[in-house]
Parts: sequence; structure tokens; C-alpha cells
Amino acid sequence: MTLTSPTGVIPPVCTPLTPDREVDVPSLLRLVDHLVTGGAHGLFVLGSTSEAAYLTDGQRRLVVESVAAHVAGELPVLAGAIDMTTPRVLDHVASVTAAGADGVVVTAPFYARTHPAEIARHYRGVAAASPVPVIAYDIPVAVHTKLPADVVLELAADGVLAGLKDSSGDLAAFRHIVTGARDRQGLTGFRVLTGSELVVDAALTLGADGAVPGLGNVDPHGYVRLYDLHRSGDLEGARAEQERLCALFGLVTVGDPARMGAGSSAIGAFKAALHLRGVIDCPVTAEPQVPLAQDEVERVGKYLAAAGLL
Amino acid sequence: MTLTSPTGVIPPVCTPLTPDREVDVPSLLRLVDHLVTGGAHGLFVLGSTSEAAYLTDGQRRLVVESVAAHVAGELPVLAGAIDMTTPRVLDHVASVTAAGADGVVVTAPFYARTHPAEIARHYRGVAAASPVPVIAYDIPVAVHTKLPADVVLELAADGVLAGLKDSSGDLAAFRHIVTGARDRQGLTGFRVLTGSELVVDAALTLGADGAVPGLGNVDPHGYVRLYDLHRSGDLEGARAEQERLCALFGLVTVGDPARMGAGSSAIGAFKAALHLRGVIDCPVTAEPQVPLAQDEVERVGKYLAAAGLL
Amino acid sequence: MTLTSPTGVIPPVCTPLTPDREVDVPSLLRLVDHLVTGGAHGLFVLGSTSEAAYLTDGQRRLVVESVAAHVAGELPVLAGAIDMTTPRVLDHVASVTAAGADGVVVTAPFYARTHPAEIARHYRGVAAASPVPVIAYDIPVAVHTKLPADVVLELAADGVLAGLKDSSGDLAAFRHIVTGARDRQGLTGFRVLTGSELVVDAALTLGADGAVPGLGNVDPHGYVRLYDLHRSGDLEGARAEQERLCALFGLVTVGDPARMGAGSSAIGAFKAALHLRGVIDCPVTAEPQVPLAQDEVERVGKYLAAAGLL
Amino acid sequence: MTLTSPTGVIPPVCTPLTPDREVDVPSLLRLVDHLVTGGAHGLFVLGSTSEAAYLTDGQRRLVVESVAAHVAGELPVLAGAIDMTTPRVLDHVASVTAAGADGVVVTAPFYARTHPAEIARHYRGVAAASPVPVIAYDIPVAVHTKLPADVVLELAADGVLAGLKDSSGDLAAFRHIVTGARDRQGLTGFRVLTGSELVVDAALTLGADGAVPGLGNVDPHGYVRLYDLHRSGDLEGARAEQERLCALFGLVTVGDPARMGAGSSAIGAFKAALHLRGVIDCPVTAEPQVPLAQDEVERVGKYLAAAGLL
Repeated sequence: MTLTSPTGVIPPVCTPLTPDREVDVPSLLRLVDHLVTGGAHGLFVLGSTSEAAYLTDGQRRLVVESVAAHVAGELPVLAGAIDMTTPRVLDHVASVTAAGADGVVVTAPFYARTHPAEIARHYRGVAAASPVPVIAYDIPVAVHTKLPADVVLELAADGVLAGLKDSSGDLAAFRHIVTGARDRQGLTGFRVLTGSELVVDAALTLGADGAVPGLGNVDPHGYVRLYDLHRSGDLEGARAEQERLCALFGLVTVGDPARMGAGSSAIGAFKAALHLRGVIDCPVTAEPQVPLAQDEVERVGKYLAAAGLL
Repeated sequence: MTLTSPTGVIPPVCTPLTPDREVDVPSLLRLVDHLVTGGAHGLFVLGSTSEAAYLTDGQRRLVVESVAAHVAGELPVLAGAIDMTTPRVLDHVASVTAAGADGVVVTAPFYARTHPAEIARHYRGVAAASPVPVIAYDIPVAVHTKLPADVVLELAADGVLAGLKDSSGDLAAFRHIVTGARDRQGLTGFRVLTGSELVVDAALTLGADGAVPGLGNVDPHGYVRLYDLHRSGDLEGARAEQERLCALFGLVTVGDPARMGAGSSAIGAFKAALHLRGVIDCPVTAEPQVPLAQDEVERVGKYLAAAGLL
Repeated sequence: MTLTSPTGVIPPVCTPLTPDREVDVPSLLRLVDHLVTGGAHGLFVLGSTSEAAYLTDGQRRLVVESVAAHVAGELPVLAGAIDMTTPRVLDHVASVTAAGADGVVVTAPFYARTHPAEIARHYRGVAAASPVPVIAYDIPVAVHTKLPADVVLELAADGVLAGLKDSSGDLAAFRHIVTGARDRQGLTGFRVLTGSELVVDAALTLGADGAVPGLGNVDPHGYVRLYDLHRSGDLEGARAEQERLCALFGLVTVGDPARMGAGSSAIGAFKAALHLRGVIDCPVTAEPQVPLAQDEVERVGKYLAAAGLL
Repeated sequence: MTLTSPTGVIPPVCTPLTPDREVDVPSLLRLVDHLVTGGAHGLFVLGSTSEAAYLTDGQRRLVVESVAAHVAGELPVLAGAIDMTTPRVLDHVASVTAAGADGVVVTAPFYARTHPAEIARHYRGVAAASPVPVIAYDIPVAVHTKLPADVVLELAADGVLAGLKDSSGDLAAFRHIVTGARDRQGLTGFRVLTGSELVVDAALTLGADGAVPGLGNVDPHGYVRLYDLHRSGDLEGARAEQERLCALFGLVTVGDPARMGAGSSAIGAFKAALHLRGVIDCPVTAEPQVPLAQDEVERVGKYLAAAGLL
């Protein structure tokens, strides 16, 4: 369980692509090395930042196989099993666990209209068939439903969920789960991770077990430093490091909103930054995302320089 | 093109399941016969009403293969290729066309955040790789984006889209597309179909080419009668038939909203009605939908009786 | 009751302002004459198109007094009593009825979070204290709540509501109310009006009693012609007139969305059109709406010319 | 400016009503004394927790007059000027400043559709005419728009805004404003207050100047203790106090969601708690809110007892 419900900094690993949009495995493994060298305590592949929604089933499997074989158990690998409903998620669970994932990360149903009772039934069905622990992924911006805190706590108490990755941005609801899990008997193994990369210091202060910061692809050392400062009790130092990372995060806004969506801009900027830093060979994003223009990429470079990363 | 962009009544075919939630092919083929006998002008498999979001890839393929082989070209079979983004949709397009689909029905990207420019890029990418015509599926309740009317018309003018299935409920925007397509040169083959089963008469009056009514599973004869009355100029008769169908549609509300979502109630009621009418063997719905209780099924029966269908 | 729950075409009257943004009463009365000459069957002042949300209480009262005195009972004057909750709405009801309104038009609570039980309680409270009939105003784009159809029908059956003005754009729900009101005993006086100016023909076909079209400010003759054609049974003629009005409606899009909201563009365009047509002296809109630029006004002129109105 | 842009704990003061729903001035003044005795650093009247949306203009004025006269300048009194658009807000600004308010708190436009350019224009127009400092009130749950962080910072830099009360729940955006204001020249007087009563400790840690906690009506001492612990550097103590207040906050959920909205439940529970604690005479809420049932009030009492307040 310690392997599969890790604490600490667990970056959602970007998926480098070749110019013809196949998974670029050598770049992916260099990125993994970059994250491990940066001090990451675990890896989360096939999340939203990984462009899981854009990868075919074959590409998804290749990502997990490549990463799991590469890290060879040195640190835990969580894998998203991102699909609309229980039967489709279960196919992904079978695939990613066969490929070596130590835990699966699962959202509420989407596309289909849903309901708290159906969300609970969904997680129970997934957990019953999963050979590895199941971590709930609360991401309303993608699935258009907020996981109810009481449903999460009930599923945790019943052993259905091993953890939560919260990308809802709702720190008050997050705290309700953190303190609820802490105060209940038998939930000592339940891990609560924040995906809100701009308030990791605050989340840790109120009791989070770790963070899954998309920006951690670009600057893993920064998030690990933040985490270590916080654990050592240097809250002021953690805040300063967080603020440096917040400034760096501005790179997600480089894309022109008249020409592309916020996702194209953010993922494009993360990949451009990894390319500029020499970690990956090609910054291309999956279709139908709109690529950054040259001047937008240059602005990414300025953010990196300002943060001392270039 | 006439086969693949059909006009008239094209029900979105429910997917009967066995008690252990595998596709019940004999029931599926009986349902197809029921629809063909009822006068349907085409079939739409793997839509939202078909529980496409709940079917595994294997189940999806089995549905298309079974139906396409059964109808053997006597009427066109459209198939949903419902997934999050271009690369994943293209895998479904390959699968359903190999299985015999005459056209594919594709939504805007979902889960991923999107943008009009990305929506256009998505359809262009899908159409470039599809061996059959592509029909846009506007269903904001599922994908949380409305297809912009001007994007649809531009894609139609460029030959990217062969038609539109509009389940947005926004009749004014629908009309904008209907008249826009009619008034532009070279768009004579572009078909505009409404998925709003409660205002089919109105949609036809303002120029729709046909309808894709979920309730048409339960009462295909009714929708075909409505369509024929309208074509013959008997608008008053069409309205009366539509109102009868609106009353019947009340069956989707039988499920207790404290216990299940609106989707579980609606799909559960359609299947319960098909079971009560003797068309399919088992009314079960896919996970994690909540089943109707016995008294809720009885209320479905009352709706059928009131409509003269039981 | 016939006066206060009118049928037919009831334009929501724009509120002309002077350059320093006071109510321009002479222009307002010329606009009223323009609408009456155009054949309007009633007037609706202080609606959304009237910029009621932007008018002070003093300006609101001046509008009702001026219009009511001017028409002197020749046709019914409905007045919006647009505010957040019951006590505030009741102050407006007192004010507009003292000023001569024949009926009041009231939305669901807004700003405050609400609930169907609270919506019902709101209308019951307003009706109990109102000296004139109360018409419900369903406008989710403004109040962010949809009036539940069953609540409307229950309030109609109880004599709380004398009618509904539906600007929700949801024609299926509208039909549910139209047929529900028709089929219940004792609801013969309940009037259902559509605010969806682009599908008035469809709304009339399914049983609406009339329309409240914002575009009717610009072209009242068109909407009255549409209504008369429909009543005479010339549905094809009604459709053609509606389509001409739909094309004219394009003028609401002239404002640059990078520079202003859709409301500034639409209200600005209506007023620019009235100014270009010589009905009002000044096209200014209330603060903080952004004014149209000169080239945007010129595009309004082109829409008018294309519709034969300039 | 120090008076009008206070720091620290500034409760949004509930508005006690008599059984016939008039402002209960003696209870209001006892509540003010309770807050002042509790250590409040300022008072915010006519906010959402004050039921400003439910109070008539006369009642609003009476509240400000009574409170301002009572505190007689001993601590600053901010007053909401809650209305839809600039002209209507300005009438409230005139009224509440005549009644003695030291600052006004103003939301984005609502009911009317809006746009960032219109929001900026709105605040500029209000500030130009206001005799006292203007504080922006970011409350998307009520106005259905999020104040863009860059608009807030631009208005702060231009001297339009003296502060921000953030009830958006988006701590990352809040931080962007806190650090942005801190890092810009000349913004030393701009105050950033959180309305998120469940994460006040986190907001203070990242640099907030104070808090406006609705629950502070019930337990002002708790929030003042939290604030003082935080200022003294005892972050662990602040966290423990915040967690005690979070547990107490559960009282807002006592109302049955099948019977009332979340607002009726929360405001009803605050007033029930104040009544049970002997601060106000009558727990009634304004129309059309649904009153709590007796057993729901008893559950409020249990929350108070568990928190050591009864």
C-alpha cells in the first residue's frame, strides 16, 4: 500500500510525442529521469496533463509499459484509467495493470449524466475488479461533476478508495476530506493529494499528504524543495518557493485565447518548456490541440529564464 | 450519399443487454426488426440512447457488426464514434466502418477543454481519415460545449460534414443552420436532423430533414406517422401525434431523483418499455446506472397503456 | 383579465435615453406610437430589453407613468418588477401599479440561491400582495434558474399566475406548459407567451398565445404580420416572415466580442436601429454597457437595408 | 483609508428580523455588541449573509443608520451596495454613505449579461461617484461571474478599488491578487479579504489582510482567536482553531435539501444559532426563504454544544 498510495510530490507525467504524433519513448524516459532526479516521490502517468484524453489505447499502454519498466519499482507508478463509465474504465484498469501500474486513478463518470449514487456505484464496481488500489480523481473542469466529500469519505471508510487526487480547486471541500479521513478510525492509509499546483503550501499546511503538480514536469526540483521545506517546518521558505512557482506558472497563459483553448495553451507551454530545457525532443501536442506560435514559445522561454531555469 | 445521410425517422437504437451485461444480440435484432417494421428510414447505433458511453470497444463493435449484417443494406446504419478527442475517435471510426457502418456520428471534444478553433480542427481531422461521411453530433448536455452554428456551416460548406444531429434543444440555433445550409450554394446534400423528440413537428416545419428520437425505440410507428403526416401537409395531425408522443415521453421521469440520475431513469424506462412490449428479453442497463424499482417499472406500464401501446 | 393577460404581439419596449442617460420621454412615446402603429397588441415595459436592470427606481417609475398615460388604456401595459427577492419585488409592484401598469412580470429570485419550493413561495407572496395579475418571467440567462414547468402549472392552477413569458429558449418545456395549461380545467385564462423571437412561428403552432419579441422594437409590423399570417392559417407565409426577421436579427451580433458583452451588442444594436429609422433621438445605452463603434452602427444599417427597413 | 479598508476580522453582520419581517433594531444592536465584544476589527453590513438581497431599500438604510450610529466611529462600517448595474448601485452608494457607511462593497453586474470590459467600466463609474472607498466583492455563486484577477489588479493600481472581498472559493486566483498587489508599487493600501470562512488560516498564510466570515456572527471570538494566533506566528494553533470552526460550520447543512435551498438552510442556521445563544430575539428569515423545522433547529443546537458555545 505504501507503494501504491504514495505521499509527496508525484508529477503527472507529460507524454512527449514525435512530429507525427506517436509516443516518443526515448523522450518520455528522459522526462522520467528528469523527474526522478528532481526528487519526485512517485509518478502519475495518463492523467490530464499527460494528454490521456488524446492518447489512443495503444499509446496509453505503451506509456505505462515504458515507464513501469524503466523505473523498475524504484518508485510507484500510478496510471489514469480515464474513460466515461465503469465498463470502459475496467478495460483500462486491466490494460494499465497488465502494463505494470501500481495504482489506478479514476474520475467520476462523464459524458453520461450522473448522480452521487451512481458515482459511488461506479467506484465500488471499479474497485471490486481492480487488482491494484483505486485513487479517486476529482476534476470538475473535465467531468463537470464535483465528487461529493461525503461520498469520498464513505468510500474511503469502506476500503473502496485508497486515496484522492483533488484537482477541483475547492480547498474547503478538500479540507473536509483531509480532516474527515484523519478523524475516522481505520483510514490511516487513505492518502489525500492536491492537484492545485498554486496552493500546494496551503494544502500541505491543512494536512494534505502530497501534490500532483502539472508544473512539476517543468520544475520538479522546485516542488520537491517546497515539500521538503514544509516538512522541515520552514513554512515561510515553502511559501517563497510556492510563489516562485506561481510566477513560473504564468507560462500557461502564453497562447492567444482568440486562437486556441486554455488546454492547448497550458499543455503546449509545458511541452515547449521541456523542449527548451532540453528534456524532450519535440514539443508537439496531440490533435486537435492548436500549436503555440513561435512568439508564444519565446514567451515560455522568458518565463523559464525569469525562474532561473534556462 | 443518400444512403449515408438519410432523411426521415432514424431512431437511436437501444442496446439490449443480458442479465450479466453483455450485448444481447437476439434482442438487439428483434429491436431492429421492430424499428424497421415501424417504418424507420435509417438506424443510428452507438448514440447516447444506445448507452455508447457505457459499452466497451468490443461491445460497440459487436453492435455494429450485428446490426449491419442484419439489415444488409436495406436501410442506412449510422454509428456513433463517441470518444474524447481526434485520435481516439479515429480508432472508433476505423472499427465501426470495418464493421459495416454507412456513416459516423461524432461529437465535439470532451473531457479536454476545447475551443471553436479546436472543434473545427477536430472535425477536419476526423473527416480526412474517415472512409464514410461524418455527421456532427451536437449534444451539450454530454460534452458541455455547444457546436457554434457558424462552425457547422463552414464545415458543411467545405465538405467536411455531411450532416448534423442536433440534441442541443436550441431550436433557434438549429434554424440558423437549417436556413444557412439551404441558402448556401452546394450544400444540397447536407442533412439536418433533430434529436429533440418533443418538438419534431416544429423542427420539420422549419426545415429539418428528419429526426433521431430516443422515444422512437418505444414507438417507432408514432414518429413515422408524425413524419408522414407532416410531409403530406397535415400539420394539425402531426401536432396531435407529437402531443401523444410527448405524453408518452413522461415515462422517462419514473425514476426517483433521490436515488438515481435522469439518465438512469430515462434509459431504464426506455428499456423497461421495450421489455414490457415484448421486444427485448431483459431491461437491464449498464453500470453504474441505477436500476428502476418494481413500482417505477409499473409506472412505465401505465404510460404505455395510456398511449395505447400495451 | 383580457386586458392584463393579453395575447398577440407584445413588444418589450426599449427605453430611449438622453446623452446624459436620463429617460428620453419624447423618444419613448414616439417608440410607443411606432409599436402601436405597427399593430402591437400590448406593451411590456421594464423588461430585460428595456434595460430594466440598468434603470434606477425613479427612471422605472417615469417609464411606466409616461407610457401608461400615453396609451390611456387603449392597449394593456405590462411592467417588469425585476428584483432579487419577494420584499424587493413587492416594492416595485407597488410602484409600477401606482404608475398605471395593468399587470406585473416577475422572475424567479436571483442573486440569492434558490430552490423550487422557494420559487413557488416567491410567486405566492407576490401574487398575494399584487393588485394586478402576475405573469411569470422565465429567463435563465439572467437569473440562472429555469422555472420548473410543474411549478408553473401548479401556480397557474392555483390562480397565482395569470401567464408566463418564456425566454428560456427551451421549446420542449414551453410546450409542456402550453399543453398542460390547455388540458387542465379552469386554466382557460392562463396566457403563455414566448420571448424566443426566432421561433415565434413554431411557438404559435404548438399553441402559444403570443410573443414578446425584443426585435419587435425594430420591426413591429413584421411580427404582427407573422402573427396574422399564422392566425389565418398561412403557416408557410408565417415561416417566410419569421425567416426574414431571423435574418434581420443578425444585427445583434455587430458588437466586437473582444470589446463588449452580448448584451451591450444586442441592446446597442436595437437602439442604433431605432435611431437610424428615426424613431428615437439618441442610441445611447445605460452604464456600464459599452457603446457600439461607428462601423458597428453602419453594419446595423446594412441589416436594416437588407430587410427593407431603411 | 485605514478606517475604510480595515484589516482583521470583519463579520458580515446578519440582519435580525421581527416575526413580521421588519428589521429588529434592538436585536441588531445586540448582535453588533456581540461582534465588537468578540473582538471584530470592522463590520460589514448589507452583504449576502446580511440578506441584503432580501431587504427593501428602506430596511437597508435603517440597518446602516442604526449600526453606524451605534458604533459611532469606534470601528469601521462597510456596507454592501448590492444591485444589478452601475446606476442602481450608485443610488445605494448615495443612500448608505448618507447613512454613515465608511466604505462600500460592490459586486460585478448581475442579471444583465456582462464582460470584463463592462466590469471594469462598472467599477470605474461607481468609484468616480462614491464619496467613500470602493471594495470589490467577488461572489460568483450570486452573480455568476468571476472577477478576473487582472481586472482587479488594474483597478487597484488605478486607485479605483481600495480592496477586495473574495468569496469565490478560488484560493489560487486569490493568491494571484494578493501577491500581485504586494509586488506592485503604490498598492500598499489595497486590502485583500477572504470570505472563505473554512480556509481563513490558509488565506492569512498566503498574505490575506483579513477575513469576512459569515460564521463569525455565531462565533466571533473564534475567528478573532484564529487571527491573533496566526499573527503571533502560532500557525498550528490557528489551524486547530480553524478546524474547530469548520466543524461548527456543519450547522449550515441542517436544512432538508428536498424542502429548501442551501441559502435558506445556511442563513436559517446562523440566525437559529444566534437565537439559541440569546443574541437575537427571533430567528426568522426573509421571504421567500423556507424556515427551518424544529428538529433542524435542534440540530443547530447540537453543533453549538459540540463547539462549546451553548
